[in-house]
Amino acid sequence: MIDPFDDAYFMKRALVEAEAAYELGEIPVGAVVVVNNTIIARAHNLTERLIDVTAHAEMQAITAAANYLGGKYLHKCTLYVTLEPCQMCAGALYWSQIDRVVYGAADEQRGCKTMGTKLHPKTTIEGGVLAEEAKQLLKRFFVEKRNLN
Amino acid sequence: MIDPFDDAYFMKRALVEAEAAYELGEIPVGAVVVVNNTIIARAHNLTERLIDVTAHAEMQAITAAANYLGGKYLHKCTLYVTLEPCQMCAGALYWSQIDRVVYGAADEQRGCKTMGTKLHPKTTIEGGVLAEEAKQLLKRFFVEKRNLN
Repeated sequence: MIDPFDDAYFMKRALVEAEAAYELGEIPVGAVVVVNNTIIARAHNLTERLIDVTAHAEMQAITAAANYLGGKYLHKCTLYVTLEPCQMCAGALYWSQIDRVVYGAADEQRGCKTMGTKLHPKTTIEGGVLAEEAKQLLKRFFVEKRNLN
Repeated sequence: MIDPFDDAYFMKRALVEAEAAYELGEIPVGAVVVVNNTIIARAHNLTERLIDVTAHAEMQAITAAANYLGGKYLHKCTLYVTLEPCQMCAGALYWSQIDRVVYGAADEQRGCKTMGTKLHPKTTIEGGVLAEEAKQLLKRFFVEKRNLN
């Protein structure tokens, strides 16, 4: 039986968020938080617009999900994010005790795996879901940015 | 000549913030951001009140300082924080490219040194300024919390 709510389904929603960031001239990264097959938070990178290095998609999604749940721990939740989380976002996910993190493209320079950031023992993490789509969007952004300057 | 604006001076201001957190029943950690001997941001931990694991003192101080400066990089700034930053906060400080981080008490369990979080190459970090005061306040908080439960 086909599961309509598989990882690709939710990662596509995160990609829609990444595209919204792209349209705003932000580094295109998007995220959604899911519990029981329901999206309870969605966000995209807004570091330029908010003039705030902490405004990564994941950070906003964590805050919004906790607000929705009325509790600060994201037990039974999954975060889908189009790019591997950085140290800051992985550190926030650590505190959230989230069940599961699924990312798209790897960030070999500044991703939490390369940087060795620890997640909570309760948390599982996996990457590579619609990685090519996420990577192509990022590539398009940086190529255009380079041509503009 | 005595410098009235030494590290202890600003750490005392961070401790005032930590005490404000304590009064609210929050884990007592406070922070200030300083540029040219002027405090441009002050914040204390609000994770319980805001129901948000990302609401550490440092995170709010980084956001407030960038808002004050009108730019997201905290060049020439020093962050004073009463407790060694965690992975999340050190990760945010990494992105901010802040000049200097000064902390009070060490956090041997979840501090950025133990966790191996990387700061920006431009950033220097040192600890131990009014460490005993910060530690005693934290100790008092956890002893009282234990007795209440």
